[in-house]
Amino acid sequence: MTLKTISSRDNPLYKELKHLATSSQARRKAARTLLDGVHLCEAYLQHVGMPPLCIVSETAVLNSEVTVILQGCADSAATQSIVLPDALFHALSQVEHGIDILFVIDTPEQKEPQRLMQSAVLLDKVQDPGNFGSIVRSAAAAGIRQVFCSPGTTFAWSPKVLRAGMGAHFLIEIFENVDLEALIQRADIPVIATSSYAKQRIYDLDLTKPVAWLFGHEGQGVAEHLQALSTHQATIPHLGAIESLNVAASSAVCFFEQVRQQTSD
Amino acid sequence: MTLKTISSRDNPLYKELKHLATSSQARRKAARTLLDGVHLCEAYLQHVGMPPLCIVSETAVLNSEVTVILQGCADSAATQSIVLPDALFHALSQVEHGIDILFVIDTPEQKEPQRLMQSAVLLDKVQDPGNFGSIVRSAAAAGIRQVFCSPGTTFAWSPKVLRAGMGAHFLIEIFENVDLEALIQRADIPVIATSSYAKQRIYDLDLTKPVAWLFGHEGQGVAEHLQALSTHQATIPHLGAIESLNVAASSAVCFFEQVRQQTSD
Repeated sequence: MTLKTISSRDNPLYKELKHLATSSQARRKAARTLLDGVHLCEAYLQHVGMPPLCIVSETAVLNSEVTVILQGCADSAATQSIVLPDALFHALSQVEHGIDILFVIDTPEQKEPQRLMQSAVLLDKVQDPGNFGSIVRSAAAAGIRQVFCSPGTTFAWSPKVLRAGMGAHFLIEIFENVDLEALIQRADIPVIATSSYAKQRIYDLDLTKPVAWLFGHEGQGVAEHLQALSTHQATIPHLGAIESLNVAASSAVCFFEQVRQQTSD
Repeated sequence: MTLKTISSRDNPLYKELKHLATSSQARRKAARTLLDGVHLCEAYLQHVGMPPLCIVSETAVLNSEVTVILQGCADSAATQSIVLPDALFHALSQVEHGIDILFVIDTPEQKEPQRLMQSAVLLDKVQDPGNFGSIVRSAAAAGIRQVFCSPGTTFAWSPKVLRAGMGAHFLIEIFENVDLEALIQRADIPVIATSSYAKQRIYDLDLTKPVAWLFGHEGQGVAEHLQALSTHQATIPHLGAIESLNVAASSAVCFFEQVRQQTSD
């Protein structure tokens, strides 16, 4: 197993990695991102394949889980593996108490389907990376395979979103900068906007067939013009004096009500 | 309306506030915390009462929502109101694009009930403040009124947890440093541990009567000795190749399955 060691902060490749790790703009421009930690790297290997770059710290080289991954990378002509001194590695990683391994991967370019035909999630300006990642994770667990995001939704492939997604990104198609208005207008399936003002309860909807779930901005909810285009508006009934749920919590409740109906006799 | 202005970083009260804003230890020791932003302050006024201290920035004094709150505080003998230059205010606040208002409040001391008798949430070492806050918010929305936390669970009254809770803290009793083992052993109601390895589905449980939900650490789940003590182990069935849900998503699914059963004819 040959590993290339970089020990200078001035190394051109290291500088490129640092740029990628710290600048969202750089990640979008290069169409590359970083997977941080053993769990995400293993999920990538399992569901996608070999990464272009595998980066570990000097300490992590001794870790047994890392050794297995490095050996796999060494067997692949497509992957370059790099060892960094711990200090240089930590300047690239946002994980504090993890095992020091990073993959650099190309973010997939998805060709947007013309029509909504299978169960999907539509996100209108969801801002928080943790919420976005949790929604992708819940959707994948519920068997939903497409997520469409409006312009102004947080970038799907940032390290924070990827961490919260826990590998779900590799099981799902994510379409960004989508014209949700046009997508809803040509939908072949019901589009359900969740709203605390709606009268119909999600429990009273027929969710045994494919539906598209529409969720909005953490503070403002789904934009009015999108709500108006939706075929259904539905609410999660509350029993307490709290106005609304967190958007990731709310989406999980909807997705698993769909699973409950789909798996009930 | 009289407002005291503090303009020096060396003012003793300002130094105390800075300490409270930046040190979790200081907050625990003083049994005080900070509520950041209009929404949390309004929720406190609505559900609890007047705070000991109300702090605003010079810019925020001109905001109409802030004016209403300041007038209420001026009418109360219990509340001292303070104006800070914007720079001094922002050193106390973690909210980036909000309206500059903070309450300093006393964290409530709850006398722990001897027995579990009403629906409750038991948290075993949940680490992430955003998850904790989202769980409290979902619980309150589902009509659950008690949350019990093991030692090692994130501090319930940190500004991050409070922000994610969106005011739910004021509708619920939160007990910290609880011996969950003892609590489960003397429970009068079913205690349900969620586990991805369990065979029983949450949909097959009778949730029309009070139950206690037990959730664990983000990575490790519920500790084995607590799982063993629980009366039920149940799973949220998945349809995708993802092992588990985020703990806040998972708890929302459980709480609202309970709401669904409680509100169904």
